[in-house]
Amino acid sequence: MTISERATALNLQQTQLSQGTQAYFDKCREKLGLVPNVLVAYAFDETKLRAFTDMYNDLMLGDSPLTKTEREMIAVAVSSVNHCYYCLTAHGAALRQLSGDPKLGEQIAMNYRAANLPPRQRAMLDFAVKLTETPDKMEEADRQALRDAGFDDRAIWDIASTASFFNMSNRMAAAIDMRPNDEYHAMAR
Amino acid sequence: MTISERATALNLQQTQLSQGTQAYFDKCREKLGLVPNVLVAYAFDETKLRAFTDMYNDLMLGDSPLTKTEREMIAVAVSSVNHCYYCLTAHGAALRQLSGDPKLGEQIAMNYRAANLPPRQRAMLDFAVKLTETPDKMEEADRQALRDAGFDDRAIWDIASTASFFNMSNRMAAAIDMRPNDEYHAMAR
Amino acid sequence: MTISERATALNLQQTQLSQGTQAYFDKCREKLGLVPNVLVAYAFDETKLRAFTDMYNDLMLGDSPLTKTEREMIAVAVSSVNHCYYCLTAHGAALRQLSGDPKLGEQIAMNYRAANLPPRQRAMLDFAVKLTETPDKMEEADRQALRDAGFDDRAIWDIASTASFFNMSNRMAAAIDMRPNDEYHAMAR
Amino acid sequence: MTISERATALNLQQTQLSQGTQAYFDKCREKLGLVPNVLVAYAFDETKLRAFTDMYNDLMLGDSPLTKTEREMIAVAVSSVNHCYYCLTAHGAALRQLSGDPKLGEQIAMNYRAANLPPRQRAMLDFAVKLTETPDKMEEADRQALRDAGFDDRAIWDIASTASFFNMSNRMAAAIDMRPNDEYHAMAR
Amino acid sequence: MTISERATALNLQQTQLSQGTQAYFDKCREKLGLVPNVLVAYAFDETKLRAFTDMYNDLMLGDSPLTKTEREMIAVAVSSVNHCYYCLTAHGAALRQLSGDPKLGEQIAMNYRAANLPPRQRAMLDFAVKLTETPDKMEEADRQALRDAGFDDRAIWDIASTASFFNMSNRMAAAIDMRPNDEYHAMAR
Amino acid sequence: MTISERATALNLQQTQLSQGTQAYFDKCREKLGLVPNVLVAYAFDETKLRAFTDMYNDLMLGDSPLTKTEREMIAVAVSSVNHCYYCLTAHGAALRQLSGDPKLGEQIAMNYRAANLPPRQRAMLDFAVKLTETPDKMEEADRQALRDAGFDDRAIWDIASTASFFNMSNRMAAAIDMRPNDEYHAMAR
Repeated sequence: MTISERATALNLQQTQLSQGTQAYFDKCREKLGLVPNVLVAYAFDETKLRAFTDMYNDLMLGDSPLTKTEREMIAVAVSSVNHCYYCLTAHGAALRQLSGDPKLGEQIAMNYRAANLPPRQRAMLDFAVKLTETPDKMEEADRQALRDAGFDDRAIWDIASTASFFNMSNRMAAAIDMRPNDEYHAMAR
Repeated sequence: MTISERATALNLQQTQLSQGTQAYFDKCREKLGLVPNVLVAYAFDETKLRAFTDMYNDLMLGDSPLTKTEREMIAVAVSSVNHCYYCLTAHGAALRQLSGDPKLGEQIAMNYRAANLPPRQRAMLDFAVKLTETPDKMEEADRQALRDAGFDDRAIWDIASTASFFNMSNRMAAAIDMRPNDEYHAMAR
Repeated sequence: MTISERATALNLQQTQLSQGTQAYFDKCREKLGLVPNVLVAYAFDETKLRAFTDMYNDLMLGDSPLTKTEREMIAVAVSSVNHCYYCLTAHGAALRQLSGDPKLGEQIAMNYRAANLPPRQRAMLDFAVKLTETPDKMEEADRQALRDAGFDDRAIWDIASTASFFNMSNRMAAAIDMRPNDEYHAMAR
Repeated sequence: MTISERATALNLQQTQLSQGTQAYFDKCREKLGLVPNVLVAYAFDETKLRAFTDMYNDLMLGDSPLTKTEREMIAVAVSSVNHCYYCLTAHGAALRQLSGDPKLGEQIAMNYRAANLPPRQRAMLDFAVKLTETPDKMEEADRQALRDAGFDDRAIWDIASTASFFNMSNRMAAAIDMRPNDEYHAMAR
Repeated sequence: MTISERATALNLQQTQLSQGTQAYFDKCREKLGLVPNVLVAYAFDETKLRAFTDMYNDLMLGDSPLTKTEREMIAVAVSSVNHCYYCLTAHGAALRQLSGDPKLGEQIAMNYRAANLPPRQRAMLDFAVKLTETPDKMEEADRQALRDAGFDDRAIWDIASTASFFNMSNRMAAAIDMRPNDEYHAMAR
Repeated sequence: MTISERATALNLQQTQLSQGTQAYFDKCREKLGLVPNVLVAYAFDETKLRAFTDMYNDLMLGDSPLTKTEREMIAVAVSSVNHCYYCLTAHGAALRQLSGDPKLGEQIAMNYRAANLPPRQRAMLDFAVKLTETPDKMEEADRQALRDAGFDDRAIWDIASTASFFNMSNRMAAAIDMRPNDEYHAMAR
């Protein structure tokens, strides 16, 4: 594997990937056209890489009462609050692509309040953004607002865990200066 | 398994655990004297439970240039900023126990600046707390401060990923009103 | 009087206490088992010590429509917002003791929203915490919320003055690095 | 005593003042030309009135390494951060009067950074304002900055206690909507 | 033109004013008794001076559903949030003068919530202050609150543009340390 | 002129434009391929439109020690802090175009700290962002940092006035829900 640009400000890249990781990266290239730099960053330790991808894949690609687009909306709205360059770039691209609506993707990356969202999705992002900004102030009333918008407890779990996950990822990217693949910028414009 | 008190405000508990999960919970009871409620909360979906425990166990119990006590210090300092009742209770207990210094555990739960920490650990928590409060403002100078305090890039990764993980966990606990096991309160006082 | 550990980062301790102060400190030892370090800190100047104790004793021990436990709840909730190590330690112990409910004491020290409080006490702490965080934004609606929860104007005065007092004490403790007596940590666990 | 305008939004005024309080209020009228409304507010309870005036008089009028003008500068700078209408009005007037420099008084009421202060007073207000805004972040370095500016530990105590006191008073005034005497507005312009 | 005191911390004053600017300044002296230092500051470049005065004069003196006093109330309330020494001084004077109510002027300069405003003006300042503090959180509900208070869309434009203008002016004054004319301090007390 | 989509949430569009405005809009269409919606929004009042365009054109297109690209960098960095959908869209496009570096434009729109800027431009944006976030805390040291980075007082004026202008524009756009032209999204990707 040759990585033309360093994926992070830390010096931890592996010279030799295991066969399993190599195969996983090949699959990424085939399906996405690239190996996301976050995976390159985690690849120095296969246990960490696998823990990250297991959680990520279940959260963003697994069964859920939320559509994949809705999960990307949460990813992008949270990353906007945290001004995360990596996640806004990578998940902004994913949201433009999945939604088929590049303008919507930009709006949520800039300020989700500017998007003309249906009440259900607006409630979902209000919850995700409050959880991001003031986790200490979450209350039953916040969960109730989601129930009132039509989400059941299973869906609330997924809204909560997706928003929480990107509060982790945003910070990880900021802490180690993770750099997104350049290809994302032009995708699905 | 009987859970006397509901673990979260959400209604997602499984009636039937798989053999594997049952065995894992038995091991928790044997080693810790309890099944942490966070695991009970995740048990409604075994994929999510496993992804969570894989990441958690690698992070907090796996090989690292950071001691286990230092990782708990990060967990508690981050949870203090976020005022997370679950994590301050559970990881406060762990920190009192691991450090053998209940007063230190309390100090970090209340305000890590009140603890008389060696410069290395102070730098570690300064980084973790800045990453928690203003992830958008992290810079090379913050990483350099860790290097100056004696941490190499591998250690910086672990400081970053531990602090980031608890920014996820704190929010998950807040979002679903996760309740810690009562036993933690009296532990290691 | 020998003080084994310095009470603050400032160098102001009196070598010789007056008879009156000595008697007061003896009474503290008898009733509390210790002389609170805040009193040791103020003892360098007997006028200041007396002004502080007069205000404190009236506020926390005098007649009031609030119970002593409720006043300690305010002390601890305010100190939690301000992350005050001294007051969380000393008044956390007092709240655990007075309420007879160590878990409740911990919850309020960590995040009062995690405690299952009756509406009256929840309204009381909402007011105290808003007053702590954004005093410039207090309005008649905030007082009305207390009246709606059953408090009369006399009780509002005491909620206001207790929350205000700890905004003073928290800052005094932070400014001079006041250290709580070690004994508090293990009390009423 | 007739109070033409209610002193606070609370309904707690005493109809009958004790001889001692009456005498104290007469002395205020003689020396200041008015009875400060804060005293009228506290007069419903003589113990509270006395505790407040004892602390206030020692702090603002007693012996101190700080001049009375410097103490008023702290009062006003803290009240500016907290946007306290009562204290900015009453102590703004006092600062204009004591300093003999109405413009300086206005500058500190609006933004102390706009005043051309000598380094000693600038350091004093930097400490007071940081203590007001982020008490949890005070550190030895903040005390050292005061020592570097020429303050000894006794003076640091007074800077700390004055700033802390007005964080109490500002909140008390906000909580009960305390109204300053109209006369202050035109004083010492 | 002789300017006794430098108007800003920057060194950009023109030695020679054009006839047009000289005439404009003469008119200021005649009508206001002074040339506002903001104009002196901009005078180094006549294009900038004219762009500034054209916008300012239309906004503050032109036709509007808002009275001139209401526009000054917005100017002062916004400047209070931003702690702008220049604008609080100059527009505080204007508001005292135009309203004929020096106390009202002081209240809005200190904390507009302390003024007993009619609901219409209170709604107007609530909008202006939210726009100042959290522009990213403005929503249709905020415009609707203005409509409910009796403002039409034309009036909303003027509330919005006045509040926005002073968010520019406050920052310009802060950035270059613009100093108000001393005369303002004593005006209309 | 037909405007297919309403430019703002307010109902103020003119049915009939003057010849001068019509000519100006025709020129916009010729040079930019569109009439920026901000101009459509202001067109209900030609005095306001002209005041806005005069200030804007001098600031962004007039003579300056700053390049046009640098001025757009300030516009975008300020708009990122304020999460302004209109300005991030319109000036994001302008910055991508002028810089010839779409990735740089995205970085500054998301978090300018992620861009690898030369020290001069980094200092410029640090100043603009501090002025945006905490105008009350600007000091001589901030101006000195610009001088140390090679800017003279004339350049400091332009950095200050550009950053200040977009703090106005961002708020105006937020207050009236100004919608950018759709064409910007795809420009210069």
